[in-house]
Order: sequence, then C-alpha cells, then structure tokens
Amino acid sequence: MSSTMGDRVRISIFGQSHGEMIGAVIDGLPAGERIDPDALQAMMARRAPGQALTTPRSEKDAVRIVSGLVGGVTCGAPLCLMIENTDVRSADYERLRRLPRPGHADLPAHVKWNGFNDVRGGGHFSARLTAPLCAAGGILMQLYARRGIRIGAHLYEAAGVRDTPMDPMRVSEKDLDALLEAPLPVFDREAGEKMLSAVAEARREGDSRGGIVECAVLGLKCGLGEPMFGGLENLISRAVFAVPAVKGIEFGEGFGAARLRGSENNDPYRMGKDGPEPVSNHAGGILGGLSTGAPLVFRAAFKPTPSIALKQDTVDLAEMKDASLEITGRHDPCVALRAVPCVEAAAAAALADLVL
Amino acid sequence: MSSTMGDRVRISIFGQSHGEMIGAVIDGLPAGERIDPDALQAMMARRAPGQALTTPRSEKDAVRIVSGLVGGVTCGAPLCLMIENTDVRSADYERLRRLPRPGHADLPAHVKWNGFNDVRGGGHFSARLTAPLCAAGGILMQLYARRGIRIGAHLYEAAGVRDTPMDPMRVSEKDLDALLEAPLPVFDREAGEKMLSAVAEARREGDSRGGIVECAVLGLKCGLGEPMFGGLENLISRAVFAVPAVKGIEFGEGFGAARLRGSENNDPYRMGKDGPEPVSNHAGGILGGLSTGAPLVFRAAFKPTPSIALKQDTVDLAEMKDASLEITGRHDPCVALRAVPCVEAAAAAALADLVL
Amino acid sequence: MSSTMGDRVRISIFGQSHGEMIGAVIDGLPAGERIDPDALQAMMARRAPGQALTTPRSEKDAVRIVSGLVGGVTCGAPLCLMIENTDVRSADYERLRRLPRPGHADLPAHVKWNGFNDVRGGGHFSARLTAPLCAAGGILMQLYARRGIRIGAHLYEAAGVRDTPMDPMRVSEKDLDALLEAPLPVFDREAGEKMLSAVAEARREGDSRGGIVECAVLGLKCGLGEPMFGGLENLISRAVFAVPAVKGIEFGEGFGAARLRGSENNDPYRMGKDGPEPVSNHAGGILGGLSTGAPLVFRAAFKPTPSIALKQDTVDLAEMKDASLEITGRHDPCVALRAVPCVEAAAAAALADLVL
Amino acid sequence: MSSTMGDRVRISIFGQSHGEMIGAVIDGLPAGERIDPDALQAMMARRAPGQALTTPRSEKDAVRIVSGLVGGVTCGAPLCLMIENTDVRSADYERLRRLPRPGHADLPAHVKWNGFNDVRGGGHFSARLTAPLCAAGGILMQLYARRGIRIGAHLYEAAGVRDTPMDPMRVSEKDLDALLEAPLPVFDREAGEKMLSAVAEARREGDSRGGIVECAVLGLKCGLGEPMFGGLENLISRAVFAVPAVKGIEFGEGFGAARLRGSENNDPYRMGKDGPEPVSNHAGGILGGLSTGAPLVFRAAFKPTPSIALKQDTVDLAEMKDASLEITGRHDPCVALRAVPCVEAAAAAALADLVL
Repeated sequence: MSSTMGDRVRISIFGQSHGEMIGAVIDGLPAGERIDPDALQAMMARRAPGQALTTPRSEKDAVRIVSGLVGGVTCGAPLCLMIENTDVRSADYERLRRLPRPGHADLPAHVKWNGFNDVRGGGHFSARLTAPLCAAGGILMQLYARRGIRIGAHLYEAAGVRDTPMDPMRVSEKDLDALLEAPLPVFDREAGEKMLSAVAEARREGDSRGGIVECAVLGLKCGLGEPMFGGLENLISRAVFAVPAVKGIEFGEGFGAARLRGSENNDPYRMGKDGPEPVSNHAGGILGGLSTGAPLVFRAAFKPTPSIALKQDTVDLAEMKDASLEITGRHDPCVALRAVPCVEAAAAAALADLVL
Repeated sequence: MSSTMGDRVRISIFGQSHGEMIGAVIDGLPAGERIDPDALQAMMARRAPGQALTTPRSEKDAVRIVSGLVGGVTCGAPLCLMIENTDVRSADYERLRRLPRPGHADLPAHVKWNGFNDVRGGGHFSARLTAPLCAAGGILMQLYARRGIRIGAHLYEAAGVRDTPMDPMRVSEKDLDALLEAPLPVFDREAGEKMLSAVAEARREGDSRGGIVECAVLGLKCGLGEPMFGGLENLISRAVFAVPAVKGIEFGEGFGAARLRGSENNDPYRMGKDGPEPVSNHAGGILGGLSTGAPLVFRAAFKPTPSIALKQDTVDLAEMKDASLEITGRHDPCVALRAVPCVEAAAAAALADLVL
Repeated sequence: MSSTMGDRVRISIFGQSHGEMIGAVIDGLPAGERIDPDALQAMMARRAPGQALTTPRSEKDAVRIVSGLVGGVTCGAPLCLMIENTDVRSADYERLRRLPRPGHADLPAHVKWNGFNDVRGGGHFSARLTAPLCAAGGILMQLYARRGIRIGAHLYEAAGVRDTPMDPMRVSEKDLDALLEAPLPVFDREAGEKMLSAVAEARREGDSRGGIVECAVLGLKCGLGEPMFGGLENLISRAVFAVPAVKGIEFGEGFGAARLRGSENNDPYRMGKDGPEPVSNHAGGILGGLSTGAPLVFRAAFKPTPSIALKQDTVDLAEMKDASLEITGRHDPCVALRAVPCVEAAAAAALADLVL
Repeated sequence: MSSTMGDRVRISIFGQSHGEMIGAVIDGLPAGERIDPDALQAMMARRAPGQALTTPRSEKDAVRIVSGLVGGVTCGAPLCLMIENTDVRSADYERLRRLPRPGHADLPAHVKWNGFNDVRGGGHFSARLTAPLCAAGGILMQLYARRGIRIGAHLYEAAGVRDTPMDPMRVSEKDLDALLEAPLPVFDREAGEKMLSAVAEARREGDSRGGIVECAVLGLKCGLGEPMFGGLENLISRAVFAVPAVKGIEFGEGFGAARLRGSENNDPYRMGKDGPEPVSNHAGGILGGLSTGAPLVFRAAFKPTPSIALKQDTVDLAEMKDASLEITGRHDPCVALRAVPCVEAAAAAALADLVL
C-alpha cells in the first residue's frame, strides 16, 4: 500500500538502490497516446547523476518500456518501465547494516522490517527511486502537454541563495522552456552560480546544503479537483513527500499567508474576456482544493543531504553501543539540485487521476 | 472519491454548511472500544463557535452516534456520526450565488458543479465541515490514548505573534494537557493575549488575520509508516490540507531545514536504555516517511479568513460584469484560533490506517 | 474497509438491524441530478417487508436524504441517506448471544469481534442492511435511466419452481416495466403462484426455501469495463455477494457454458445497421470483462432463509456445551422473494464507477 | 484501475500476450519471507503450455524476480516479477485486427480503446496473463503455507465428465498433495482419462469444451473476512473472474442451495474439542462473508475455449461487412485443464489483504 498511488491511474514503483532493476507500472493510461522515447530520456537526463556537483555514479538510466505499447503508442494495457541499475558497488555499503546513518531511514526501516530491509544505498528509500518516478512523470507530462497542461520547476533557493521567484500571475510556458535550456534550472544565472559555489564550499567541508524547489502547473482549467481529501493540495502534497528529503510544502503565499491580512491575501475577481478571472494569485491557483484557472504554484523544501563526509555519532546495532560513522560513498552535496524534475514528476503523478 | 479517506479505516464526511445534517461514517474501527461521549463533546467544544473572537453562530454541535455502538462500545459495524445544523440562516447567503467571494471556493465550485453547488455558507467547502472531522478525530483519539498515542496542538502563531514553540525532543503529555486547560491553546499566555488583541484589531478594521498551528503526536513507536506515497508526511499532509484555509505544512525543521547544513540538520544517534535514540529531532520524528520514535511535530499555515467586512472586487455571475461585495455574515476574524482541534483531528484521521 | 465500495463513486453503508439508524453515504455523484423521492420510495417498497410471505415486521423504510441535495437536486456534496429502525424488538434476540444461529454469521462475527458484535437481528450482517443498499441503488438507477441504462430483475426460480427465463437477446425495457407492475416479480404468473404456495408450505412446516434471481442491465454501450480485476463480472460479483444469502453468481450461460462446445457457446458477429452485433448472447453481454452491447444478464443463487422455526442443534457459547435452538422471530420463509430489488441495487452500485 | 487489486497487499499485473515482457508487481508483502524459486517454478510448470492437450507453444515461463528480494528473502520493498515472452509469432494474428474473434474480447477492446488495443493474441486480455497471476499467487502461497493455509484445486468437471467432488468437511492437505502429483489434477484417474479423450475428440472436430474447477482453502481460522463488500465471497469472486473464460462461481452448495430447504442447508453446530464446530459444510466455509473455520470450497465455471478451428461468422472491421473466420493458431481445446493453478492463484491474491 506504500509505493502505489492513484485510483484511476495507478502508479506502482518498485526497486531498491542497488537491486537489479528499478521501475514502475502505470495502469490506467488512455490508449492511443504516442510516447516519445527521446523526450522521456531528456527528462531522465535532467535528474541523472554526473552533472555539476552531483553524484559521480554513472548511470545512463535508459528507460525500457516492456509492456503497454504497440508501435510506440499506448494500447490500454499497463506500461511497465524498467531501468537497470548498472553501476552498483555494494561493498561501499555493507558495514552500514550495523551503523544506521543519521538523517536516513536506515534505523526506522531496520525496525519496521526486522532487519530484513535492503541496506545497500538506502534500499527502497533511496533517492535512486526517483528515477522511475521521473520516468512515470515524464510519460504523464507528454500526455498532459497534448491537453494544454505544462509542469515546470526551478531551484527557488539553494544553500540560502534565492533565485528570482516565479510570478504567480505571469509565469508562462516560455519561462518553463527557458529553464529546460539552462545548465542549472534557475531564472537568475548569477544566483545559480552563487548556489553552486556555496554548495561546492559545503562539499569541500565534508558537509551538505538544503534548498527549495518551486513548481508551476500551467493550463489547468478552473474547477479541477475534489473537495476535502481529494483537493489539489492534498494530492500534490501526498505525492511530493514521496521525494526523499522533502520536509515542507506550501501553495501560493503558503506560510507567508499566515502573516497577511485577508484584504491582502484574497484575490479579487474581475470580468476578463474569457470570463471571471482573479486579479492576483496569492492562492497559488487553488481555492477549496479546486483549481482557479490561475497558475498552480507551490514550493517544496529539501533538507540538506544527510550523507555527509564529516564524522557523525551513531550506534552499532550489532553490539548495541555508541559508535561513530564517516560516510565515504558518492553523494550529492545538495539533493535539491537534482530534485527539480522529481518535483515535476510528483506533481504529474498527483494530477493523473484528475487530468486523464 | 473526495470526502472519503483511508484504506483499512475509512472516514467519509458528508454535509453542507447550511444543510440539514453534517456528519461522518467511520468504517473499520476495531470492536470492543468504549466511546466516551463526554470526552467527545469536550473535543467538539474546543472547535465550537461562540468563543472569544470566533463566530457568534450558536451551535451546540452535539454528536449523535446512530450506528456502530452497542451500549456505548464499538461493535465492529461502521459508526455514523450525525450533527444537526441548528442555527441556519440561509437568507444571509442567497445573493452570494451571483457574487463569488474572493478567497473562497465559490467560483471554482460553481464551475466544477455547473452552478448546482450549495452556495449557502460555502456548502460542502465550508469550515463547518470540520465539525464532523473533529468528531471522527475525537473518537480516534480516544482509541489512540489507549494505545499510548497522544495528539495535541497549539497556536504557534497568530497575527504575527508567536507562542513558545514545542521543544521537539521534550514535548510531553503534560504539555498537551496544559493546552487543554488554557482558555486559548497556547503555552505563553501573554503571547495569547497579544494574539487576541491583534486579531480583535483586525476585526474592528473589517479585516482578518492568518496563523500557524503546531501539532505533536506522542507515543508513536519507531518504524511506523510505509515507504514512498504511504509515509507519515504523505498521509498527514493529505489529511491536513482537508482543513479549509491551510496553505502549507512542514515537518520538524521544515522550510528552515533548507537553510541548514547536513551536519546541523542530521539527528545523530546514541544508545539509550531502551535502544538507539536520536539526540536531537530536526526530523520532526520522521525519516523516510517512517516514525523515528521521537515526537512527531509539524506545523500547518492558515491563511487569513477570506470572509472580511471590507469591500472587495468580484464579478456578478448572472450579468457577467464587474461587481463589488461586502460580506456581512458571522465570521471568525482568524480561522487559526478554532483550527487547533481540527489539525489534531486531521492528524488522527491520517494515522488510522497505521495505528489501528 | 468492509462496508464501503467504489473508487470514483463511493458507497458507504452503515447500521445494524436493531440499531437506531441505518443508511448510506454516496460520495462522488455528479451535480445537477434531480432525485425523485417518490420513485425512490417505490424502490424501497419493492423490498419492504409486509408483502405476501415476507416478514410481518412493519417498516415504512422512509428514506431521508439529509445532505447532498439543494432543492431536490444533487449539489456535488455526498448524499447521506437515513432510514430509521422503527419497529425494533430487541427482546426477541437477547438470548441469541449465547446460541449462534446455524446458517447465520453469528458465530464467525462473535469470533471476529471478540463477542462485541451486535447480535440483535444479526447486527450489521442482517438482510435489513439491504434497505440502504436499495436506497443507494434506487438513486443510482434514477441517474442511469437518464443515461439510457435500465436494470431489472425477476424471480428466476423459487422453491424449485422456475419462471420463464429472460431471453438474453430480446429482453427489453417493456419486460422490465411489466415486472414492476406484477404483484410478484415474475414473467409467468402461474409459476409465481406455484412458488408462493411451495414457499407457504415450507413455512407451515417451520422450514424455508431458496431461490434464484435473474437480472438484466440494458443500454450499456459496447466496451464498458476494465480488464482483469476491473471487469464487469468482477465488479458485479463483488457487489452482489454483499446481499446476504447469495452463494453463487453466473453470467450468460454461466455454469451451463461448462457443458457447451465452443461452436455452441461462441456468439458470432454480423454487421447490423449500427455496426457489428452478436447474433446470440451466450456471453451474457460480457467478453473479457467488457460489455458487448448485448443485454448484460446474470443470475444470483440465494440459499434458503437460515432462520427457521424447526429445532436446530447449536452450541451455548456461555457454557461451551451443546444446545438446541428454536427461532421464533419474524422471518421470510424465502429471502429470494424480497431480494429482487436488492440484486438490482447491487448491480447499480457495481456499475457506478464505470457509468457516472 | 483495472489490472491492480488489493488495499494492503497490491498486485499489479502488466503485459500483453505477444509483448516483450509480462509480469507483476506485489507491493506490501511482509519482510523476512524466503521465496523458494523452485517451488515457484513448479507452480508455473502446472499452468505451462506443452502438456497433454494444451497449446504446443513452448514457453518456459521462467520467473525473474528483479526487485524486493535480498539473498532470496523479501526486504519489504515491492517485488517485481518478470516473465519473458519467448515464443512470439505475431504473424499468426495480424489479420485478426480486422476480424474480431467470437467469444473473445477483441471487439469490445477495439471499441474501448479506439482500435489501439494490442490484438496480437488478445493482448492484455489473453489467458497468457494468467502466468504473472500464477507467479504472484505462487509467491503468496509460499507465505500462506508458513501460516498454516493451503490452497488447492482440481478439475471438477471437463467436457461433461465429472471428477470425484471434494468432501467439504474432510478435504485435507493430503488430498491437495495428491493432486500435485497426478498428471492431471483429478482425484479419479479414470474420470481424468475420460475428460482427456472427450476433449481430444472435440479438438479433432475443430471444436472445444468447457469445464469446472473446484478449489479449497484449508486452514483459515474462524472469523476472517469483512462484512458486506469485503466478505470472502466478494473478494474471491472479484479475483477469480480475472481468469479469462470464467462465467460463474459458487461457494459451498452454491446454486444447489437454491433448491434446498433451510433445514437441509443450514450447518448445525456442536461443541468440538477446540470449540464450536459446524457438523456439515453446505456453507462452503463462509457465513456472512466470514470464514467459519471449515474448509472454504468454491467452484468456477469455464466456458469452452473460444478459439476454435471451425469456421465462424464475424465481421470485417475495415470494410464493415460480414465475414468469416477460421482460427489456425495454437490453442488449448479446453482452457479449464490449465486453469487449475490459475484459480488457486486468484484465490491467493484475493486473500492477501486478510491473511498477511
């Protein structure tokens, strides 16, 4: 009941960081949809390791679609997406069975699964599992694009350096296109460079940094969503917290709204040429869980990568005594950098029941 | 698929603000659990209108349990909880059918349901529907208490005034008890008085204020939760966004973690007398979606009440032209004040599948 | 997770035979649908006790819709249907707590719920709970009728006497109308009289009889349903077994198909004026779980009423020894007689996710 | 929403008859369960083609488990089971795109998916997809065996020839073991030979035959199941109709119960050494959807294989005119022969939420 979500469109993610295969099954896609493998692979490349300041682990993350397509077109049957884990070095991780890493799921997973959990690289809890999430999201985003819906995100903040925020009233497909072409998904290149150098500095110190990803969904018609537990905020938050290291989410003004007055935070209406429209978008495109027709905008906060080179206190589960740990594996010093397409994919997964 | 949540324990909420009845069905509770009606009614009283700076609408919100109990004890059959809407004044709202209120779901609900939505008081989108949520949560919390699990929340911030935050390592049942006895659920009474006067001032100006509720869940054993989409953060966020006006949620350090370094944010372990334990709790009691055994702590941001007395721009849906609106009904100037038990109830609802 | 079904349209049934209220919540109905209370009450009257050879217990089973309607029209919010249990005589049943009735759920329910189950009249397992099922089904059938879909059933067999079967190629709305007007829902009145006299004879002997209900769904377009676990047979069978006393279900030729040859059982196609059409309907309107466009026809087998006046062996759960039991309450001597609308309602509930 | 079932344990089946891979994801299995690959492969061999009177298509159906295991033991993460389609001859089927086969899902699937369905071998509707179902069921049955639960089935009837039925009170693990060793899963070898010769005769005539599979589940404790839609009959029937060609299911006396009297069909209780026990088992081990502790026994009716060599009438979808069809591919003349493990697997899948 854990790694599956959705009622009409069901996405079921499988695999472990150092297992043989990771992947996803997507059940319930409409038939007749062409899947562009190059566009899918471009999505995968955006989260792939091996970029500036990301894990040097070399993974091509080629997505193989082994069911559900006939001649590259969906046939109504579930799609199974497979990604091979090609660069697995289990030796790095063996001793971690005894020494749970602070900030990781190692210890609770050990307790939950009575020590049978796959400890290699965090197993099923690894950020590696965002690869099949991105694959599933990448496919969904191809279908959404045909329905006029675009999802795009940027690094809103990393290591305390802030990018130019999205303008919730005016963020456009052109803005999202620009992000895809940039080497780092930011609007303000200078801010991007400052982010990278701050993160690089933390890495040199054996440490890591956190960040915030901001994401927009464009093209949602007014009135999409269900009340109460089925609202857009409910569905998107449930999906986005599936991305490891996310510790907070906010829509529109979010936490900032708690400090505003109603007269400041409300979005008045005016009659536009296509009907009523809000004149501002403090709501982030959502009222009562339903889309307002304005851009849906949210931010997800990422904690700093818990795998750091600095020595940390932990316990030895074999001898049940205090111990210390230095993590030497390959790790991103700021998970938020590669998380941008993951947040998009999670948003895509959340919307599938409503949009398709 | 909207007003229902849960797989093993299913909570289905029904009703509209000014309909005949509101209530909830809870399916899947264990048999043999005594339900204390006084404790339930005490929970209802905490969110009831008629308190300082809350709606003067007089509602006793007596919860009638019309099924599922034999002699006050659960019998395995679903519980149906009924609350009568006693103080309904529909006349206040009739003209709002034409004039959607900024900041409310009126316009998207009108579009979604082709104008058939119940506009009286926001209909199914009204904060009135948190009454059955609280009733369901109040029942669940009685069952949890028998299993050593306590949920309690306070007003972390209102109108920009901050209460003493919970200490994520040391927050105790005694702290939660103290909140129940206070006239306003805050730790720092002086801060509470400042909140009330700031909110009262906004009301005098025809305006409203936002706030933040902080909630702790005590007594969760290590290892509770499911990976990926079934994690504690996923389930709690999905439930908490069902409370109207919530625009953000964060766990542990939350958005603050985005500015910390890994060496600051990680919670190292030490060997305690009952086994390994974290020495700090930046994680808010959750790693990889699983409970760590430390207190689970999260915060939910509430926007300012959208119903304000000040004149606002809107549109006239009958004549499709610009219009203006002054809202004269009975409204809380700060929804966060009464939202404290609602957040607890949402957390309780989120945990039902895992705890029971 | 038990008394709730459906993904998009969720029906949650609550109550016990002798509790205060029984009812159902229907979440996910489209807005703008007028509900005709007289037609709903007519549906209820078809299963009501007090008819020939049915329980003399007097229940009007007036359905009160306490939410989800504005001016008699659905508003998008969940409908809550309430039925009062007016003629409750608990004294009849008290001693049954010790003496589980053969053929009823008493003993397994006692074990499942550690003796906390409501034993009065079978509690949540009572056929009384088909009243809210019929209410929910009656509402759905009003919506279906507007979409060209009709559901109707007849007593195919009772006490070994068989009615004229439905012709799976030619069964029409007119046939279903005729059943509604007949005093007993059979095509062959003479067979109906024989059924009644055979059942009456069993009752005089303190015994009971079984029967078979045959049901048709007309107007389903070709291609409705989902593959594998989401097929029409899967969904309908899951729902129909919720009607107490059902022990078997078959579609089209059903068990008879096991004795046919492929050349006999296959339904060849011909080109009709509206496109391809089957020339026979051994499939009962379903191939691969999907509708073929031909009438959907199935039969459900009902065991004889387990409550009989004859002395039966049982055990005394208080003293854990052998005992005997004579059931003296009010009971139908053949549950199949009143089950006809229940089977229709279950079929309606099963189709809601697909049709609405 | 179609090829996935289960709430706590979710089984998601993917693939098409002539696609690259077929398989299943099982999410929610307990950790620490050793999976015996030989026992799994033995289960696969029981449904494999190439046996007497079954499809000569040569498929080894080797199941590769590419996730969820560490050292052959479940680690809590979802299992992904992969089976390669090795003997794919698409050419056989190409022209069937125009000529829908009577008795198959070809035409409704064509309509449902606007002609994008995979027509090769029936695509996702093929009985080939029972291979991953058997793989999933085979794994579940290993876990059940450790919990004292055994599932076994036999050919109750084929081509009108009946095997010795299971004795619902006395069917034992020894009986089920005997079925595994027999060349054909029947108790009465002579009956088995008659079945084979009757089926062989039908094949010689270019025709096919139907059959009935009877299945027992041993070791279920009393009180398992949920009321109403979550009963054992509901869950098992939903799962068993996922096996292609099933047209009916009955539990215990099933349709026969419709002709019995209450005094005949009720199972009286007596006090046994381990507590109350039924003295007969007309109920097939289920009352009110809950297990009684007696063997659970049900029968599933299989229609004759729709793929027959005899000429059949159909339509040409390209030219929209009448046409005829002779099916020349490799097909079992009686699907029931190989369906025995499929029915067991479906029962296993149905029980997963309750047993694990």
